[in-house]
Amino acid sequence: MNINIERLHQMLDEVNQITEEGEGITRLAYSSKEDDALKWFMETCHENSIDTHQDAIGNTFATIGPKDKKGILIGSHLDTVKNGGKYDGALGVVAGLEVLLTFKENNIPLKRPVTVVSFRGEEANILGGTFGSRIFCDLIEIDEDFELKLSKTPFNIEQVKNSSGYENYTDYLELHIEQGKTLENKGMQIGVVEAIAGIKRIDVKVIGEAAHSGTMSMRERNDALISTSKLLLEFEKIVNTYGEPYVGTVGELYVSPNLANVVPGEINFVLEVRGIDLKVMKNIIDEFKNYAENNHSVNIKENVEKHQINLSNDLINLTKETCAEKSIHYHTMMSGANHDANSLSRRMNAGMIFIPSKDGISHNPAEYSSTEDIEAGAEVMLGTVKKLLAE
Amino acid sequence: MNINIERLHQMLDEVNQITEEGEGITRLAYSSKEDDALKWFMETCHENSIDTHQDAIGNTFATIGPKDKKGILIGSHLDTVKNGGKYDGALGVVAGLEVLLTFKENNIPLKRPVTVVSFRGEEANILGGTFGSRIFCDLIEIDEDFELKLSKTPFNIEQVKNSSGYENYTDYLELHIEQGKTLENKGMQIGVVEAIAGIKRIDVKVIGEAAHSGTMSMRERNDALISTSKLLLEFEKIVNTYGEPYVGTVGELYVSPNLANVVPGEINFVLEVRGIDLKVMKNIIDEFKNYAENNHSVNIKENVEKHQINLSNDLINLTKETCAEKSIHYHTMMSGANHDANSLSRRMNAGMIFIPSKDGISHNPAEYSSTEDIEAGAEVMLGTVKKLLAE
Repeated sequence: MNINIERLHQMLDEVNQITEEGEGITRLAYSSKEDDALKWFMETCHENSIDTHQDAIGNTFATIGPKDKKGILIGSHLDTVKNGGKYDGALGVVAGLEVLLTFKENNIPLKRPVTVVSFRGEEANILGGTFGSRIFCDLIEIDEDFELKLSKTPFNIEQVKNSSGYENYTDYLELHIEQGKTLENKGMQIGVVEAIAGIKRIDVKVIGEAAHSGTMSMRERNDALISTSKLLLEFEKIVNTYGEPYVGTVGELYVSPNLANVVPGEINFVLEVRGIDLKVMKNIIDEFKNYAENNHSVNIKENVEKHQINLSNDLINLTKETCAEKSIHYHTMMSGANHDANSLSRRMNAGMIFIPSKDGISHNPAEYSSTEDIEAGAEVMLGTVKKLLAE
Repeated sequence: MNINIERLHQMLDEVNQITEEGEGITRLAYSSKEDDALKWFMETCHENSIDTHQDAIGNTFATIGPKDKKGILIGSHLDTVKNGGKYDGALGVVAGLEVLLTFKENNIPLKRPVTVVSFRGEEANILGGTFGSRIFCDLIEIDEDFELKLSKTPFNIEQVKNSSGYENYTDYLELHIEQGKTLENKGMQIGVVEAIAGIKRIDVKVIGEAAHSGTMSMRERNDALISTSKLLLEFEKIVNTYGEPYVGTVGELYVSPNLANVVPGEINFVLEVRGIDLKVMKNIIDEFKNYAENNHSVNIKENVEKHQINLSNDLINLTKETCAEKSIHYHTMMSGANHDANSLSRRMNAGMIFIPSKDGISHNPAEYSSTEDIEAGAEVMLGTVKKLLAE
């Protein structure tokens, strides 16, 4: 029993007809294009005699098999960023659907239900990314701030309260593109995700002395941008000594007063570390702080701190077994980006399967994954679900 | 014959009563506060029986001595930046006035006139810095762009055309605060300025690859901000090998896309070199370009290029002789900032005398020069004018 890669590709092409005009694919969270994509999902299911339902905020489900047992949930999301690609999200939903169609056409008797889900609003949006899966998993605290943001969406508070539904499922498995270069560079077709990265960020203010660029001699100046350059290179060095999968980035930086004829007096930047062990991330930050405070004039404040999310060992092992049986090369890895699987992991066994992204490009019209890799991903998904059903 | 430091200080205090509310001194170019300061200047002259006149845009002159000969011009400006200090500009005008009063009270017969000037709009303004002195020296090209800017000021084109007046003078001498730390650190009371720095600027675009900060491993990323850090430290190293008085600054820098979770894809910055020889400045830039183009992905465009302005050797020598006679320690140096003396140097012998700025601070309420240094500056001014008159 195998998945039908032509059918999978045809479905992917169909859903990617649904987009705003412009480069790449645009189906923003809660937009009419996301609605249209969910409608397409339901209609495709109905054409294949698969039952669907939507919860109050539009998380959309398609189920085969007996409905009186706890089920296996597979899927991803159909919303995209602005001018995004064809694969981020849509691949997971369409591959999930292909798994259902494969079970159906092979008349496989199911001991318990298998459900494909498309979660609402996974990409960054006013209610925060992975909104649909967080609501589904009852992970959102309803406070004044949330209600204010909600008032700017099509949803009301009653809808939000009625969209929890995780109790009916035991496992969640998501196929997604890697959005990095690791698999491509290692020549692997499958990434078995062991954890979704934790994040630790600090705000760093580097204090120099603003001065006229012509009148302040090199020896007498205290240039905050020169100090910052040293800090950034030292930070890179520290992160590299910890090695993969730890990554450290300064992506946001402001120069003050930011005039060509003024020696920079102050630099503010956000320093971020991601990795699979918050303890190690804290060590990296501490090493940086230690260097910075002993060698420069800095003022450091805590910003974000999010624990890594360890995925289900059972699902990791079943996925690896499936790869081995199918002779597909896999790599055990971290997901640097967040995914719906994060929400699901709080409520059930959750697992993720990555396939390579060409040149690591994502959230971009140039996002691309090869037919061979998509096929491998869907086959591993099918095989892993089969193993789960057999347990 | 000596200047009267109490009188000088009293005049400085008086003019600094004229300011907008707020920290420090604010007498913006073309504002009513600049007008009021010029009025104070004229009234103070009239009280001391000194004739004054204003040209059509408000450059203001006070003259003693015979009017049928070409004269000696001394002075500076009375406008300030927003929340500036008490000395930048005002000191030169007040010291000039003190020189006139000293000549008068000692009944010194003058072979030719000595004039104190307060130029309009020396600080950065819509018509460009040193506007008053550039008009006075007939250095402004009147084109459409200039007329458009002029229409946003109190002046009309006729006034601008009628404000040239340099032909009546042979020499210009300006006393000004250093606005740097060189004199203070060297323990010198007087800076004899040999040149106003030339400026060379280039626009540098550093090209990396924007990527998700979590999914792109350290080895696979191409972080434009890390490249930039290396470029800035190499630039600093190159400038330092050339030594004083050359200075190099990156004061203006933009990160793109400037998000905490995105590896910077592109950095744009303005790189500036100032010094006393454009050829050397070009060598510094070429060395940087060579390093940048061979080690990083950069795109470099020419921006500003201004020749250094060499001041009058005669005036430099007379000033040095005066210092030596008065046993005042002096240092021959470059002016890193631009001054009205730049404009005047195109039309006559021009010279500048610096006194120390505490901590190099300027354009700031904390701007400060000591009474001893102010006295030394005014004495050197007086002595140098006396030598000029004796020639």
